[in-house]
Amino acid sequence: MIKLTAFRSVPPFAQGLVRDVRVRWALEEAGIPYQERLIGREDRATAAYRALQPFGQVPAIETDELKLFESGAIVLHIAEGSEVLMPSDANGRARTRAWMFAALNSVEPPIQNLAGIDLFHAGEAWALMRLMALEAWLGDRDYLEDRFTAGDLLMTTVLRILRHTDLVTERPALKAYQQRCEARPAFQKAMADHLKPFAAGAAQAGT
Amino acid sequence: MIKLTAFRSVPPFAQGLVRDVRVRWALEEAGIPYQERLIGREDRATAAYRALQPFGQVPAIETDELKLFESGAIVLHIAEGSEVLMPSDANGRARTRAWMFAALNSVEPPIQNLAGIDLFHAGEAWALMRLMALEAWLGDRDYLEDRFTAGDLLMTTVLRILRHTDLVTERPALKAYQQRCEARPAFQKAMADHLKPFAAGAAQAGT
Repeated sequence: MIKLTAFRSVPPFAQGLVRDVRVRWALEEAGIPYQERLIGREDRATAAYRALQPFGQVPAIETDELKLFESGAIVLHIAEGSEVLMPSDANGRARTRAWMFAALNSVEPPIQNLAGIDLFHAGEAWALMRLMALEAWLGDRDYLEDRFTAGDLLMTTVLRILRHTDLVTERPALKAYQQRCEARPAFQKAMADHLKPFAAGAAQAGT
Repeated sequence: MIKLTAFRSVPPFAQGLVRDVRVRWALEEAGIPYQERLIGREDRATAAYRALQPFGQVPAIETDELKLFESGAIVLHIAEGSEVLMPSDANGRARTRAWMFAALNSVEPPIQNLAGIDLFHAGEAWALMRLMALEAWLGDRDYLEDRFTAGDLLMTTVLRILRHTDLVTERPALKAYQQRCEARPAFQKAMADHLKPFAAGAAQAGT
């Protein structure tokens, strides 16, 4: 069974945004059961953990055959085995991957900048341009391509980074797109499982 | 034949760093001939170009069957057809993709921040941590995995973004890694082809 590494606790502002959500969501879409392994701050810098995740981040997965890190690579690995996340024809697969990289390399970096440094105007302009381009691409589309794919999964998790701003909510097409993706039962289940240990930790801290 | 879209001219600071280099390099490694299509600033916002590249960026490729954007997705597409860029066993492929995503999603964003805003210390700390983790991973390795893959190709193009700083050059293992990758004839050819139109443009501007 796949073993997924996630954090035992994170600060409130990061809860719901940690990248293990991406992998949990993909596993739910694909209908693949998994086992959770929660780590603490103290584990991140150990040589054993760095051998699994070179940057000391989460998520990472382990199976009998494979150790894998990077949420994008893990989602891609899962998506290749699931028609729910990726069409089976070669062109559809290539297009799905284009949107996966678009989410993580063209859209996420300026959005992270904006989320982190609200007052840095160059970052804001860059992020806005990417959001407007994304909105223009969507137009009347329900998804980035003609069906839900792993590209939508990653893009949704990137848009969520802006939840403390009105940049997505003031754009009806983007807002509807994010809600459409988040309405999927797989997302709901993944998010609940992602948040569960944090609630448990808070309850524990309160006792 | 693959048609690759690149910019006809870019400011000097960006020459050598534009992302079409990644695709040119991958095509050279794979031994795939291609045709170049150079566009200007005026083409980037047209509806026709946005249909090919939703963010108005480069590179994009077109073949008889497929239109594809995002340098990471294009490099992956090429790598899957070339043993030079990606091993043929399933685990080796998954690991190669992990490093491709690591380059573009874990390492590039903080490096871009650092390159763009040298005085923003939070960005600098984040970038340094990623560089140190990368250096630690490399250790005595020649490449990210046990051979050159598309992961090294993308990681090298990310490290190049720091060429105006001494952050890479002061770390012998990182510097040697970058030089090892850049010494590949395919990189040399790709870089020459990337720079050629800029030189031609400069000559033209001077007449």
